[in-house]
Amino acid sequence: MTSENYKGIFSSTVKALSDVGENSPMVHLHKHGVPMPSVDRLKVFMELMHGVMFPGYFMESDIDEHNIDYYIGARLDKAVFLLSEEIRRGKCFECQVADENECTSCQLSSKEIAVEFVAQLPEIRRLLSLDVEAAYEGDPAAVSQGETIFCYPSINVMTHYRIAHALYQLEVPLIPRIITEMAHAENGVDIHPQAQIGEKFFMDHGTGIVVGGTCIIGNNVKLYHGVTLGAKSLDRKSVV
Amino acid sequence: MTSENYKGIFSSTVKALSDVGENSPMVHLHKHGVPMPSVDRLKVFMELMHGVMFPGYFMESDIDEHNIDYYIGARLDKAVFLLSEEIRRGKCFECQVADENECTSCQLSSKEIAVEFVAQLPEIRRLLSLDVEAAYEGDPAAVSQGETIFCYPSINVMTHYRIAHALYQLEVPLIPRIITEMAHAENGVDIHPQAQIGEKFFMDHGTGIVVGGTCIIGNNVKLYHGVTLGAKSLDRKSVV
Amino acid sequence: MTSENYKGIFSSTVKALSDVGENSPMVHLHKHGVPMPSVDRLKVFMELMHGVMFPGYFMESDIDEHNIDYYIGARLDKAVFLLSEEIRRGKCFECQVADENECTSCQLSSKEIAVEFVAQLPEIRRLLSLDVEAAYEGDPAAVSQGETIFCYPSINVMTHYRIAHALYQLEVPLIPRIITEMAHAENGVDIHPQAQIGEKFFMDHGTGIVVGGTCIIGNNVKLYHGVTLGAKSLDRKSVV
Amino acid sequence: MTSENYKGIFSSTVKALSDVGENSPMVHLHKHGVPMPSVDRLKVFMELMHGVMFPGYFMESDIDEHNIDYYIGARLDKAVFLLSEEIRRGKCFECQVADENECTSCQLSSKEIAVEFVAQLPEIRRLLSLDVEAAYEGDPAAVSQGETIFCYPSINVMTHYRIAHALYQLEVPLIPRIITEMAHAENGVDIHPQAQIGEKFFMDHGTGIVVGGTCIIGNNVKLYHGVTLGAKSLDRKSVV
Amino acid sequence: MTSENYKGIFSSTVKALSDVGENSPMVHLHKHGVPMPSVDRLKVFMELMHGVMFPGYFMESDIDEHNIDYYIGARLDKAVFLLSEEIRRGKCFECQVADENECTSCQLSSKEIAVEFVAQLPEIRRLLSLDVEAAYEGDPAAVSQGETIFCYPSINVMTHYRIAHALYQLEVPLIPRIITEMAHAENGVDIHPQAQIGEKFFMDHGTGIVVGGTCIIGNNVKLYHGVTLGAKSLDRKSVV
Amino acid sequence: MTSENYKGIFSSTVKALSDVGENSPMVHLHKHGVPMPSVDRLKVFMELMHGVMFPGYFMESDIDEHNIDYYIGARLDKAVFLLSEEIRRGKCFECQVADENECTSCQLSSKEIAVEFVAQLPEIRRLLSLDVEAAYEGDPAAVSQGETIFCYPSINVMTHYRIAHALYQLEVPLIPRIITEMAHAENGVDIHPQAQIGEKFFMDHGTGIVVGGTCIIGNNVKLYHGVTLGAKSLDRKSVV
Repeated sequence: MTSENYKGIFSSTVKALSDVGENSPMVHLHKHGVPMPSVDRLKVFMELMHGVMFPGYFMESDIDEHNIDYYIGARLDKAVFLLSEEIRRGKCFECQVADENECTSCQLSSKEIAVEFVAQLPEIRRLLSLDVEAAYEGDPAAVSQGETIFCYPSINVMTHYRIAHALYQLEVPLIPRIITEMAHAENGVDIHPQAQIGEKFFMDHGTGIVVGGTCIIGNNVKLYHGVTLGAKSLDRKSVV
Repeated sequence: MTSENYKGIFSSTVKALSDVGENSPMVHLHKHGVPMPSVDRLKVFMELMHGVMFPGYFMESDIDEHNIDYYIGARLDKAVFLLSEEIRRGKCFECQVADENECTSCQLSSKEIAVEFVAQLPEIRRLLSLDVEAAYEGDPAAVSQGETIFCYPSINVMTHYRIAHALYQLEVPLIPRIITEMAHAENGVDIHPQAQIGEKFFMDHGTGIVVGGTCIIGNNVKLYHGVTLGAKSLDRKSVV
Repeated sequence: MTSENYKGIFSSTVKALSDVGENSPMVHLHKHGVPMPSVDRLKVFMELMHGVMFPGYFMESDIDEHNIDYYIGARLDKAVFLLSEEIRRGKCFECQVADENECTSCQLSSKEIAVEFVAQLPEIRRLLSLDVEAAYEGDPAAVSQGETIFCYPSINVMTHYRIAHALYQLEVPLIPRIITEMAHAENGVDIHPQAQIGEKFFMDHGTGIVVGGTCIIGNNVKLYHGVTLGAKSLDRKSVV
Repeated sequence: MTSENYKGIFSSTVKALSDVGENSPMVHLHKHGVPMPSVDRLKVFMELMHGVMFPGYFMESDIDEHNIDYYIGARLDKAVFLLSEEIRRGKCFECQVADENECTSCQLSSKEIAVEFVAQLPEIRRLLSLDVEAAYEGDPAAVSQGETIFCYPSINVMTHYRIAHALYQLEVPLIPRIITEMAHAENGVDIHPQAQIGEKFFMDHGTGIVVGGTCIIGNNVKLYHGVTLGAKSLDRKSVV
Repeated sequence: MTSENYKGIFSSTVKALSDVGENSPMVHLHKHGVPMPSVDRLKVFMELMHGVMFPGYFMESDIDEHNIDYYIGARLDKAVFLLSEEIRRGKCFECQVADENECTSCQLSSKEIAVEFVAQLPEIRRLLSLDVEAAYEGDPAAVSQGETIFCYPSINVMTHYRIAHALYQLEVPLIPRIITEMAHAENGVDIHPQAQIGEKFFMDHGTGIVVGGTCIIGNNVKLYHGVTLGAKSLDRKSVV
Repeated sequence: MTSENYKGIFSSTVKALSDVGENSPMVHLHKHGVPMPSVDRLKVFMELMHGVMFPGYFMESDIDEHNIDYYIGARLDKAVFLLSEEIRRGKCFECQVADENECTSCQLSSKEIAVEFVAQLPEIRRLLSLDVEAAYEGDPAAVSQGETIFCYPSINVMTHYRIAHALYQLEVPLIPRIITEMAHAENGVDIHPQAQIGEKFFMDHGTGIVVGGTCIIGNNVKLYHGVTLGAKSLDRKSVV
């Protein structure tokens, strides 16, 4: 191949791929200078959530009675900072408004939603402590509740789901789905953030479990790997 | 345990593990100074491919009409650089030729294959845009085509598969498999790069899907998680 | 929302989450200044094990007859250093002893266990070489045994399992489970470290396979994805 | 020391250090949610500037006639993005305005300044090419002009200074000083961004050179290490 | 060169360099399993110290009246954790005791020294606030005291020196020198941790300043770059 | 500013900066696909050299009599690998040959030079051990020879210089200068790799020392900071 040929192929491919088209969904032109939600930043957010929900298990620091409130406070403040920004990005991704003057109010409401989320954390933590009990009771091989917190996919998935569900109920777009997809990628469990799951839920092994958005699961339920609950989607056309 | 004992156990283990044996497959002696294909570099390659196929969704930069061709060009040039080298490494891994003078021609042909791959990108992108349509149509819960690009495992897997399949058809060894295994690890979907998949393919949830190398799938197919298509292998002995 | 409201919500949430409770399992108060086992450090350990078991395939360096023993020795020494420390952390996580004077003996025994593990590596490597043969024989599409070492989930999972099983037999707490969970997260295959698996074991595709702790699997077994062997747990209550 | 003592010392130290005081300069309370300028981001900015001013020398990519404009365009676009944000942060650091409604106009003017800076880059590059000539002519040991670009502290310092000086003239606060301090830390040469330096300037060895803000240096000047030009400051009190 | 020659040269060089000699200072055989002090960890320690001394200037987080004590507390707790360990390593580096039973008491005393250091932080901060005043008063070009905190080498060097001096007075070996060498490398100012420096000290430009260990500097002193104070060492032989 | 204006300024700046000119030294067009020497890789090389020259002081691992040869061997092998490649890149940077068939011989000779360098390491180490003695004898405040190895700028600079000087004598282009510039940037000491320095050389404090390429320094010399030896360059024109 001559160098000229290469030049031709390369530049015509760049030209073809740079074609923005008429509102092609393949290109996302950024509105209002707001970037896409960041999966990396949301991973840090979830790491901070683990550090806040299960102090002493995750993140490097030693935790004792004297320092725990400093760490909880600092981690939570960082988490709020990250979450507000990601909520704003999620809203912007779906925003149809052209007027940039709306952006300031959008930024403020993102901060407010983040604070409402903070107010729910004690309840979320209570639910997670019951999920931990369920994991310990549901697997006689578990040595301690602490082992299930540190090692069990079920607890990791439920931490993602319960947080995503709270954000879903606060009508945050896109972000809840990204958070449950993180657990899906890591543990092979796909729970829709819209699903309603009661107290003391445990999934043994986990891989392949799918829980659809319309599911309502009561208290004290244990699922095995590979189980699908109500996740069969109709086609868009059949729905319309 | 005495220090002497430890010394003995350690050095005899090192000796045993360093035994190169007679052509044992457990040790890979590098030929011609060419290293193994690098999964880390191929991850960067795939990240650049996402940035080229779906500009504005992935990688940090804002994309607008004025800068899109610069970004597409720079990303594609880096991708070609990485891909050529990985093709060369893949060839070298399976190479039986002892003569190092062959290496130069191998390096050149790797570059040519990379360029042929570049020439196919507009067609690959057309197929992916139809897969995006299929995802949006196949899941009525999807808010927009953009959401499926950013969040849906199906699109991530198909981006890996369609690229790997193109490289497979260009007779690149090893690399196509590494690329589909990346999606397998991330999303639990195992599609063989040899499989032939038509237009508008969508996988709901995904986890556990296996598509074997001999599969031929037509247009407009939707698969649910856990489905296996033609992936049952006979034993090597039964084949021979 | 006023700034005062935010201040109130934030500080009351921090207070609620910092409540250590009466021996609540949700908080892990570190004993004896020993931190939690580190998944990141265990990932480095497993990377070194790959470098020791399959020299030349993983980790960047060129391997030849002259340098192989240096690399094996240096990698193994680092691996022992990491493993001893992680064993100690695993023990400390489950330790009920308050007296810090016991800690020194615990540290020494962790080192001894690591050395006993080193002594078993040649046998573990022999088993892995048979698993490699099984993968090559079990999938006629495999080009070489080397390809299965570099690309096949089955070999990655078995490397984790055989190491975890050896540590389990040495009565190391927690660490074996963390190691098999790594493979579970990466490849969707959940093998309990207690399970007994014979020679020449191969898993095709892998995703969704579960092998329970009480399983005993003979030689020359091939499993397909999605298969569960003896992993149905009773509830803790039914066991008691 | 008892645990109680430690608790007391620690918490009273935290309390003392958390005292915000009455407008103490030791604490920077963030205004308007805008963070401090980021030295790390400005390092990336300067790396991109090196990649734009001296294509092919810095940053990993191969540069040829066909790809150079893609790389220049993509690097420059990223640099503008980073610079606008840092200008905004620099302004905010010194801002005395309480009304957040001013922030939007501040953000827009930061972007405009960044664009004015872009318009000056061809002239800055012309000056740098003359500095390269001066370095090559000034040191007979230099093998080529390229060597001075890649290795000589003088060129690194001048790249920082000429960019900082342009930003200083555009009345950007704080950022120019941070940029010259980067070169000060790396090469031990302290040039104030306000200084005026003519064409073809060369510093041999460099370490210890100080050029004050009121200096006016003509064309074709060569300085040796350790030389101070007009950098003796009076005290603030003597000035007032 | 033949491959055999290479093998010979390589292995004989390794052998020569591996010769531990009779107590050769060129090899540091680790005692008691305690590693060398870590410059990387001490850099994190100094970053935390900056975050504690000048909240809101360094480290990414927004600081306000409501969260400042959480951040100060969490940063200080991490700093104590790092410092205790580094003190222990510093002691071990110079330790002549063979008996490992001494190690536990050494570890405890390291923790105590770290706590005594914490108790001095409010005084160190008071001194630094005066150095900030001195920098602002000493350079009429400074826009604000905040600018000197964020940008001036003098403040960076003094933060290192005042912390190192406190540790020196607590008889911590090695670590104080490593800390002042960090500032030496970054800003070209070499202050011995033993030196005594009064209130309101300012160094203009800085590069090349050397302050010897026997110097006693009073209050309100301003030094220019390149000044040496009492740092001329006699030879060891002349001293003896 | 209108969006159109911005578009115009941006694209005309890109065009101006992308002008390759007639052999302008401001653009480095890569020859033969060989990239520029990498400062980052040379930093790793120097880190390995520290690990080889002063085992147990740098790099994390514990060193004892049983493992030292493994670590020396593995580090040295990696260093040779990096150095060969950097020598090749340095040669290519200055290469005037258009014929790519010469490249293979260039690659081979780079490897040979690296091996010749390896053969000199025991002598380089002997010289460094004398420099360590000189540092200990020259500064009565030094607690041990080990302290000078770990903390003193003089030893860091001499390690860079002695290695760079050996490569200079082997006629390696560019790389020796990059290595001495690393020490220049870190410690403010600028020694030309061509300079000849005898046994037992010590620099107290260091900052600002310059040693020119034509200097010949005998044995047992001690320099103070700020001293210049024979580094005054004439202009290129005066030389011609």
